[in-house]
Amino acid sequence: MSRLPAAWRACVGTGRMELALRRDYQDSLALVQREIGFRHIRGHGLFSDGMGIHRPFTHLGQEHVRHSFTYLDQVVDLYLERGIRPFLELGFMPSGLASGDQTVFWWKGNITPPRSWSAWADLVRDTVTHLVDRYGLAEVRQWPIEVWNEPNLTQFWRDADADAYHRLYEISATTVKDVDAELQVGGPAISPGSDKWLETFAEFVVARDVPIDFVSRHAYTSGPAEHVPFGTHQTLAPASRLLEQFALPRRQLAGTPLDGLPVHITEFNSSYRPDNPIHDTAFHAAYLAPVVAAGGDHADSFSYWTFSDMFEEEGIPTALFHGGFGLLTHRQIKKPTFHLYAFLARMGEEVLSRGPHHLMTTDVTGRVTILAWAPVDHTDLRNSPSSHSLRLSLPMSGQSAFEVRSSVDEERGNAWTAWREMGRPASPTSRQLDWLREAAEPVRAHRRRPVVNGHVTVDLTLARHEVTLLEITPVCDETPSWWDDSRLLGTP
Amino acid sequence: MSRLPAAWRACVGTGRMELALRRDYQDSLALVQREIGFRHIRGHGLFSDGMGIHRPFTHLGQEHVRHSFTYLDQVVDLYLERGIRPFLELGFMPSGLASGDQTVFWWKGNITPPRSWSAWADLVRDTVTHLVDRYGLAEVRQWPIEVWNEPNLTQFWRDADADAYHRLYEISATTVKDVDAELQVGGPAISPGSDKWLETFAEFVVARDVPIDFVSRHAYTSGPAEHVPFGTHQTLAPASRLLEQFALPRRQLAGTPLDGLPVHITEFNSSYRPDNPIHDTAFHAAYLAPVVAAGGDHADSFSYWTFSDMFEEEGIPTALFHGGFGLLTHRQIKKPTFHLYAFLARMGEEVLSRGPHHLMTTDVTGRVTILAWAPVDHTDLRNSPSSHSLRLSLPMSGQSAFEVRSSVDEERGNAWTAWREMGRPASPTSRQLDWLREAAEPVRAHRRRPVVNGHVTVDLTLARHEVTLLEITPVCDETPSWWDDSRLLGTP
Amino acid sequence: MSRLPAAWRACVGTGRMELALRRDYQDSLALVQREIGFRHIRGHGLFSDGMGIHRPFTHLGQEHVRHSFTYLDQVVDLYLERGIRPFLELGFMPSGLASGDQTVFWWKGNITPPRSWSAWADLVRDTVTHLVDRYGLAEVRQWPIEVWNEPNLTQFWRDADADAYHRLYEISATTVKDVDAELQVGGPAISPGSDKWLETFAEFVVARDVPIDFVSRHAYTSGPAEHVPFGTHQTLAPASRLLEQFALPRRQLAGTPLDGLPVHITEFNSSYRPDNPIHDTAFHAAYLAPVVAAGGDHADSFSYWTFSDMFEEEGIPTALFHGGFGLLTHRQIKKPTFHLYAFLARMGEEVLSRGPHHLMTTDVTGRVTILAWAPVDHTDLRNSPSSHSLRLSLPMSGQSAFEVRSSVDEERGNAWTAWREMGRPASPTSRQLDWLREAAEPVRAHRRRPVVNGHVTVDLTLARHEVTLLEITPVCDETPSWWDDSRLLGTP
Amino acid sequence: MSRLPAAWRACVGTGRMELALRRDYQDSLALVQREIGFRHIRGHGLFSDGMGIHRPFTHLGQEHVRHSFTYLDQVVDLYLERGIRPFLELGFMPSGLASGDQTVFWWKGNITPPRSWSAWADLVRDTVTHLVDRYGLAEVRQWPIEVWNEPNLTQFWRDADADAYHRLYEISATTVKDVDAELQVGGPAISPGSDKWLETFAEFVVARDVPIDFVSRHAYTSGPAEHVPFGTHQTLAPASRLLEQFALPRRQLAGTPLDGLPVHITEFNSSYRPDNPIHDTAFHAAYLAPVVAAGGDHADSFSYWTFSDMFEEEGIPTALFHGGFGLLTHRQIKKPTFHLYAFLARMGEEVLSRGPHHLMTTDVTGRVTILAWAPVDHTDLRNSPSSHSLRLSLPMSGQSAFEVRSSVDEERGNAWTAWREMGRPASPTSRQLDWLREAAEPVRAHRRRPVVNGHVTVDLTLARHEVTLLEITPVCDETPSWWDDSRLLGTP
Repeated sequence: MSRLPAAWRACVGTGRMELALRRDYQDSLALVQREIGFRHIRGHGLFSDGMGIHRPFTHLGQEHVRHSFTYLDQVVDLYLERGIRPFLELGFMPSGLASGDQTVFWWKGNITPPRSWSAWADLVRDTVTHLVDRYGLAEVRQWPIEVWNEPNLTQFWRDADADAYHRLYEISATTVKDVDAELQVGGPAISPGSDKWLETFAEFVVARDVPIDFVSRHAYTSGPAEHVPFGTHQTLAPASRLLEQFALPRRQLAGTPLDGLPVHITEFNSSYRPDNPIHDTAFHAAYLAPVVAAGGDHADSFSYWTFSDMFEEEGIPTALFHGGFGLLTHRQIKKPTFHLYAFLARMGEEVLSRGPHHLMTTDVTGRVTILAWAPVDHTDLRNSPSSHSLRLSLPMSGQSAFEVRSSVDEERGNAWTAWREMGRPASPTSRQLDWLREAAEPVRAHRRRPVVNGHVTVDLTLARHEVTLLEITPVCDETPSWWDDSRLLGTP
Repeated sequence: MSRLPAAWRACVGTGRMELALRRDYQDSLALVQREIGFRHIRGHGLFSDGMGIHRPFTHLGQEHVRHSFTYLDQVVDLYLERGIRPFLELGFMPSGLASGDQTVFWWKGNITPPRSWSAWADLVRDTVTHLVDRYGLAEVRQWPIEVWNEPNLTQFWRDADADAYHRLYEISATTVKDVDAELQVGGPAISPGSDKWLETFAEFVVARDVPIDFVSRHAYTSGPAEHVPFGTHQTLAPASRLLEQFALPRRQLAGTPLDGLPVHITEFNSSYRPDNPIHDTAFHAAYLAPVVAAGGDHADSFSYWTFSDMFEEEGIPTALFHGGFGLLTHRQIKKPTFHLYAFLARMGEEVLSRGPHHLMTTDVTGRVTILAWAPVDHTDLRNSPSSHSLRLSLPMSGQSAFEVRSSVDEERGNAWTAWREMGRPASPTSRQLDWLREAAEPVRAHRRRPVVNGHVTVDLTLARHEVTLLEITPVCDETPSWWDDSRLLGTP
Repeated sequence: MSRLPAAWRACVGTGRMELALRRDYQDSLALVQREIGFRHIRGHGLFSDGMGIHRPFTHLGQEHVRHSFTYLDQVVDLYLERGIRPFLELGFMPSGLASGDQTVFWWKGNITPPRSWSAWADLVRDTVTHLVDRYGLAEVRQWPIEVWNEPNLTQFWRDADADAYHRLYEISATTVKDVDAELQVGGPAISPGSDKWLETFAEFVVARDVPIDFVSRHAYTSGPAEHVPFGTHQTLAPASRLLEQFALPRRQLAGTPLDGLPVHITEFNSSYRPDNPIHDTAFHAAYLAPVVAAGGDHADSFSYWTFSDMFEEEGIPTALFHGGFGLLTHRQIKKPTFHLYAFLARMGEEVLSRGPHHLMTTDVTGRVTILAWAPVDHTDLRNSPSSHSLRLSLPMSGQSAFEVRSSVDEERGNAWTAWREMGRPASPTSRQLDWLREAAEPVRAHRRRPVVNGHVTVDLTLARHEVTLLEITPVCDETPSWWDDSRLLGTP
Repeated sequence: MSRLPAAWRACVGTGRMELALRRDYQDSLALVQREIGFRHIRGHGLFSDGMGIHRPFTHLGQEHVRHSFTYLDQVVDLYLERGIRPFLELGFMPSGLASGDQTVFWWKGNITPPRSWSAWADLVRDTVTHLVDRYGLAEVRQWPIEVWNEPNLTQFWRDADADAYHRLYEISATTVKDVDAELQVGGPAISPGSDKWLETFAEFVVARDVPIDFVSRHAYTSGPAEHVPFGTHQTLAPASRLLEQFALPRRQLAGTPLDGLPVHITEFNSSYRPDNPIHDTAFHAAYLAPVVAAGGDHADSFSYWTFSDMFEEEGIPTALFHGGFGLLTHRQIKKPTFHLYAFLARMGEEVLSRGPHHLMTTDVTGRVTILAWAPVDHTDLRNSPSSHSLRLSLPMSGQSAFEVRSSVDEERGNAWTAWREMGRPASPTSRQLDWLREAAEPVRAHRRRPVVNGHVTVDLTLARHEVTLLEITPVCDETPSWWDDSRLLGTP
């Protein structure tokens, strides 16, 4: 038996940092933490104007800067209350420190290098120092600090200028280490498609002996965006491509001085678009299931991008379901991919077996859990098999076992399907929201199974795009000797 | 179209009054009120020692009585916070006022007449006056006040002495009316099996012109108790016998001066035993469905005995499921009969049609709801039909309709079945409780149905002991003209 | 006796509409509603981009607009949950409909007229229609609808163009009335300093027979802004100037066809700057006390601008106390002016007496309440009297009375003073926040007072800038005859 | 510097075990845990009938016993949710196992030895085994298990029969150790007045090598009960007598084989009567302050009897304040003694100094806290000094210090005084309860103090029966250079 690596829950993505001030965001995070329990949370916008940290002012004719943490404290206080730690991303550029006016997203994150490198260092130093003062060194040492986001793309870093990024990284990393040498810093947080960037970055930090505690990259499988109003469609590569992307950094660093550094996939998803309805489907859960089940073989974390539809990179959604990244919609409707994670969160820590369509674990109480998923056609979801069968055998003590099965598929545990049947109401009424919440719960079935020779045999049939969790426990029968259910209506 | 009478939710039963101080009770009542919404609550024990109202003491060698409302205030405050009003029952006898030591129940309610009739009148007067002072006259006038419980049975009233009861009633009723003439008072709260009692009582109050605002009785259908350790089995009469009992008081009073008085069935259930497992079954919901759907034709209220298993008349339960009356077990596991009520609470106010196995309503929004139930064999639940079919047609505007179906039956929405499969754990673990809560939720299915000539036709198949709710609403399709779900995975 | 008009709690101001999505905002609103209970809430930004309502898009080469209510529904749902109704303000201009790029505030509200008047009418019609559909006509008829904000100022309406405003008003008002003739619409929401505007506006609506259900204006008493970094200082006029401004519209409309229309002061405060620390002081509560106590003589509502420091018109605050308008700071620290309102909310509805420094009321239970305030020097708060005495006599039944006194002043019930003593921490720690919350509670004192000839005489001494509430009730003494407190330590 | 022993919060007393099912109890415990944070909770009644554990039944003519844990699980689940662990007391006797019918208390705890010693052992074994199964061995090893309560008194143990107790102890202790050798078991839980009992008990366990992990006794200082209706008055010995009682077991065991065993004072208070109003007074807090501050020098725990007035040993209280033991009344009104504990809970862990009327501590942040209390006249509370002065000096870094002072005394922070002034309403209205809650909060004052030569000097004046907490922290002044409070009203 091997242990299931905790990488799958090590981190989750979020919309820009100040969205954490929202009630819907906080309620969603509470639900996600209660039913899944991620360890860290990472998003953009720490230094963007909406957080109000970098505050230039003039006094007696002189220019000054105040670093202010009014909202940062509110956000981090909230994270810690919810039992989740920040995975900090240093970026984007405050407008008062920017060298240009290029921005990314509806909310206009400035993506230019700093006008003054020393002022950037001041900003990083003061922010990290403030966090250490407020939350303690022991706590902050557990928060990885990543430098910028996807500098290999021109929309995220002016001209995708590698030299400028290396300079940004070096200054940021040394400044962080000046605050405390055991704080963890890393990069380069690249998007897929520029894999060489990581190697060049690694050579740079090695050559100049720049501090580095982890490397990071992103992973997506979607093709070019085909836009429709308020939506995007895209082809997808097979899900196995995600695992390949997860695995690449370790391969790239093998044999270099950085061999063995932790690797964080600080964003992953199928499509990188927050308006692609594939995110809302049961297909999506079945497509990602083998990735989430096996990703821990390849990286130290892989962070689902993102936990909530409260996001706004492409503006404010015009309908409840709009293809957002979220595990949850606004108002906390669970999507099938939420359940994929929630199912994993109920599993044991010891792996009993794995297969192309299942993962089986156990725990100290003898409970066995099976996560199984249907095979999908990643080119046409209507072509995914309408059913798929599995036979599994598992060890069990006692005479019989109790099984609970929780499932989501094309019809069941699927609020998006219900929403389409309702006529896709953009603004569901209170009653419609209640129906959607009910429709979003997995179907549960329970049964007693015989134990034969210390084993239970399970014949499973999966519906189209089904993801299912079986929890099987030994029965300790407490039925009294005198009890007879056939007497329930007395003796006629 | 006719309106569905509100009698089904006019009142619900409860264990003895001070149990309302319990957290489990309060949480259960909150859940019941959120999902069902009863109007009044009635139980025993207002004047029993556990409420601490009647407090004799000696001072300077003289005997005195203090009437104290420490717990009564806590209980009534709680009721009103939960949006439910007391249906007061004057009884049992405080030990300091009792003329004997005969008691009923594990918790020893004294069932003897008062040692002093004037002291009893003082007790009633001070209590009612205190309630009026604290909650206001307008409020307390909405609380029916019933004199004693089942005085026709020797276990509830010493010797089942009718004359003594008449005296108790007269003194109580006139004392209540002395406080305020518009307070509502009634009786005789008799159990089934002594139907003549009601007539004798009516003659008495008419003859002596005693105040009376309503009459009350109880209804049960179970036969003799067959005891096993910690349980009881009983035969049941057909459910229609309950409706007959509901209807009897109006028949008995017809043509008398009391003709037209409100009739309250202040307790009803199948079995009158709090340790009969029939209460925990899906059979029970299907058995009672036609009674709850039609009872309002016969009485002004019929109060399900009781909302929670927190009860204790036969002592403290030794297992989670133990045949209690409750709609909910301890720790708020919903039983199938809970859902029967919760389904009704989702229905409209206008009746569209009724049949032997269904009730169909609508509301101002055009939503149509159908409650349907399977026929049962009341002599042997294993002989109930394994399936039952219904075809119903209903009016609907628009092109298509959205349907949500919620069901409970022998397997689904049935925590008791899950609990048996678990091995009947007396004290379920936290994980088992989670499974039971999930198993207790109705299965939900949703679909789009065509509207043809302004109607939807529904072919329903019910499983054994199924009770189901259909909610059907017109679809207003907001799908944009450009949207095409077949493009979800892009253009290959 | 006269009734105390409810104008003081009829409305309260708020930061821009989408701030209502924030958790801190919602928690603050919950606290304000629990302890004060305003009826309506008014703020800017309904149509600004942050609400995402006006959404232009291109499809098949054609330009279209979708009106989307994702956030509007979330905001209004929240308001109604908190027991407060919207006082809608139609504005500012969505960027997709704007005729220019002039903006106001850090959050860039566009202040130009619409590029298309018919598109503006569509926006108004669809929004109001949506609200009626979702919340019902009976509800929405209770929400006043005001057209724009301070069009008399160039920073709020391009060129302060009165003709353009009149056109905007006419189109908006007739569009609202097209949806339903009983919806309430009004304007012109002018700032102080352009009083003639109201008269011109009145002439315009009369001349063209434009619908109008109320008139509105604002009231402030501060002089020119003297800026320091992250703060502003201003002189103040006497508080009586606020009452004069409240009274002006009725005077202006007297004798015109609009005579008798409801007058809403849709914003008022001392300073109009959200970074003026005067808002945080006890002086401010004492300064405003006579205004809040008497304002209802002059207008139908006067809306304190604003309930919370979560505001952002001048950017994100850099310190907990920063001179924001709020009755509450971020994180719900109560300011003295909060208590002024909370004290009023505890008062009775019948006025017993009024004076320059007090208001005395009673209620049906015989409880008498006195709000009293110290006189202030509005030019130098250090010169306000260090104490002020009042003698008041009030009617009371019984032998004695119980009095509770709650006070805030320069030292007590004053978190700002405590915060200064702490060293003005920009980001207080959790422990400091606890101390601030405790420091922010009024001091309470209680005593027994004799009733002589049916009256209680109260000699009150007020400290500098004190605002105090006395609640005085008849004592009904339940002490038993045998009780003797001197026996508490037994008989030696 | 020495550490402040945690003995003061190691344990707290409670009314009989099933009262933990009450909502008021649970709310009170939540409040106590939030503001004080006790580690263990101890009360009577584990095996009494109200917990429903011992359940004899007859089947097929044979007598059997079922041990049932329905309520025990509910109670212990609640404790652990509230962050407090059981300090188990094995007793009293279930009626089905009792050898006589003598009972103690209104709720009739049976105080006779078991009819069958082996059945008692079965009961103990099954109960402890069940707890280990449900909560885990690691958890249950942290729960001390005490055998019976005050067996030296005839009202608690038939005939106060020492031999019978020794037998009970031996059987119980060995049975517990049979379940797991590391479970902690002890006794003899004697009341004051029979000090020799402990020595005899110690000799017995040594002689027979009976397992023992701790010894326990109780401590009270009240004289004979002088009853009035619904109340009791008693003289008190000086508070130092409590410390003497705490210290006695260590003295008694010194030099014996039991030397060094943990000593638990499993109950202490002034009066042992739950209807003595002294418990409700500020005198009581000042009287106990030196005991709570110093008790840890003498014993490993001393358990305040009890945290809540929800108690019922003398029946149901007839008035809100009735002399109950509780730190809180019903409905969570805080008594002065609550604050004594809450003040201690805010103190640091390192003792800086101690005196007859103060305790001074500090913590890692440099915060200094002082608990000070007024001297009392324990024979006549009207003779306690009306004021008392203290001068204290304490180390502090920086230029100045911020001080928060929280106080309760005869008038302030004293709900009992307010309640008397109200006329002692037995059943306070909702408004009166609000006033009482406000009156029950300590008065808070804050100020800036200078630091001179690294020290702050505090001159304290204490009012009659005052208990006060000072929290003093270094000020880090963040006031900007340009800030001038004298400019608050601008430049005239």
